[in-house]
Amino acid sequence: MSASSSLNAQSTPTAVRQAARDGLLKGPTSGLASGYVQVNLVILPESEAAGFLRFCQANPKPCPLLAVSEPGARTCHALANDLDIARDVPAYRIYRDGTATDTVADVADYWRDDLVTFALGCSFTFEHALIQSGLRVRHIDQGRNVPMYQTSVALTPAGGFSGNLVVSMRPFNAADVIRAIQITTRYPQVHGAPVHLGNPGLIGISELHAPDYGDPVSVQDDEIPVFWACGVTPQQVLIDSGVSFAITHSPGHMLVTDIPDRDLALF
Amino acid sequence: MSASSSLNAQSTPTAVRQAARDGLLKGPTSGLASGYVQVNLVILPESEAAGFLRFCQANPKPCPLLAVSEPGARTCHALANDLDIARDVPAYRIYRDGTATDTVADVADYWRDDLVTFALGCSFTFEHALIQSGLRVRHIDQGRNVPMYQTSVALTPAGGFSGNLVVSMRPFNAADVIRAIQITTRYPQVHGAPVHLGNPGLIGISELHAPDYGDPVSVQDDEIPVFWACGVTPQQVLIDSGVSFAITHSPGHMLVTDIPDRDLALF
Repeated sequence: MSASSSLNAQSTPTAVRQAARDGLLKGPTSGLASGYVQVNLVILPESEAAGFLRFCQANPKPCPLLAVSEPGARTCHALANDLDIARDVPAYRIYRDGTATDTVADVADYWRDDLVTFALGCSFTFEHALIQSGLRVRHIDQGRNVPMYQTSVALTPAGGFSGNLVVSMRPFNAADVIRAIQITTRYPQVHGAPVHLGNPGLIGISELHAPDYGDPVSVQDDEIPVFWACGVTPQQVLIDSGVSFAITHSPGHMLVTDIPDRDLALF
Repeated sequence: MSASSSLNAQSTPTAVRQAARDGLLKGPTSGLASGYVQVNLVILPESEAAGFLRFCQANPKPCPLLAVSEPGARTCHALANDLDIARDVPAYRIYRDGTATDTVADVADYWRDDLVTFALGCSFTFEHALIQSGLRVRHIDQGRNVPMYQTSVALTPAGGFSGNLVVSMRPFNAADVIRAIQITTRYPQVHGAPVHLGNPGLIGISELHAPDYGDPVSVQDDEIPVFWACGVTPQQVLIDSGVSFAITHSPGHMLVTDIPDRDLALF
């Protein structure tokens, strides 16, 4: 049995990161080290970093900042003690001039002394909270990726970055919509409360069954689609803004931190 | 100028109650003594009171109990220091054998040594919180009573009381639906979060424009109807349960307490 296949919900964050570092874990991190915060990564040259920090500050729902590294540092004690940012994610994406050019297993060879790492909250944390509260999350029940959509909602331009909001969608019946809003409100650092519910056309989504990223899921007649700001937004913004060089995690292949999910609850 | 017409949002709760006691205020209390909790009253003989208390405990969303008096007492220090329960409400309703038989200006002549008073939270408090947060409440903007509906949602029978939930409806756009859920969640003692949103048919409401109580309000294409448990529910329950004798406030003619609205916020 490989180290990767022996990883599961009970694995420690350290074990997951070590498996990624050793090249044994190459797949998505969903379901691993349950109860610990997984984060989106955006890694930019220092010349772009101050602008991106302003962009995140201006758009906290899609870009909730959990931590920012010192320039050149491959560690970040706010996330984990034994972290190697360049190797502890199962898969990375490289961007050049606004295009995602490569997906690689580590970025040690791409590392530069001026790179600044941004760790952004991820919906896995609030999905865990929804499930702990007894709600069923459709794409998890159906074994799919969450459906995600580009919207007509313009982000606040800042620091040279701009673009439109990307949202994820989870359907619930009315009583669970109310519960889901209450529960996710407690987690502003992982996208927080939804940004929209009901008619998808009002935010520029023409076809609920044809998501721009992820997989479609079924929506029953008595259910309401609920839309949250999504961590894919910053990746789309890097492309739309034509940034000269950037690294991100590959979608679904997150950095597993040592932060317990419960530490991100407001109350 | 009469004492009644000189009452307004800046009036003290004591001034409003005194005007009612003196027979100078006979009309609804909406908008008076802004910032202070107004309550629904249910007054029952002690023989029924223990059962009704169990009913409220089992159905806290429509029947959120703020205070219960000692049998026979016309005072209740949890609500106000100088209170006369039998005279400080502008209009009361008398029920006999499950029928509302009279509307009267005071109930001193009906008072009995075995009467127990229940004070139940009222949506005025959360509407005040919604408006303070910048939301527009349609029926207030349109100068109407809130639309209220009988539903197919059965309450939990307890203590000899039973019936169906009555709800009030306020329409909002999606972003404000989310805000309204967050804000009203903070006020569980005044009905708290909504019980339903979206399709009215799912809770047995066939025609949104024909409320069972109150007035219809307009709902725009980009708006979602949101339904809260309503303080009219216990009055309907008294009728449906055929109670031999009861007194309530007359709808809209509430008891104004000395409790600041802010004291009912959970967080």
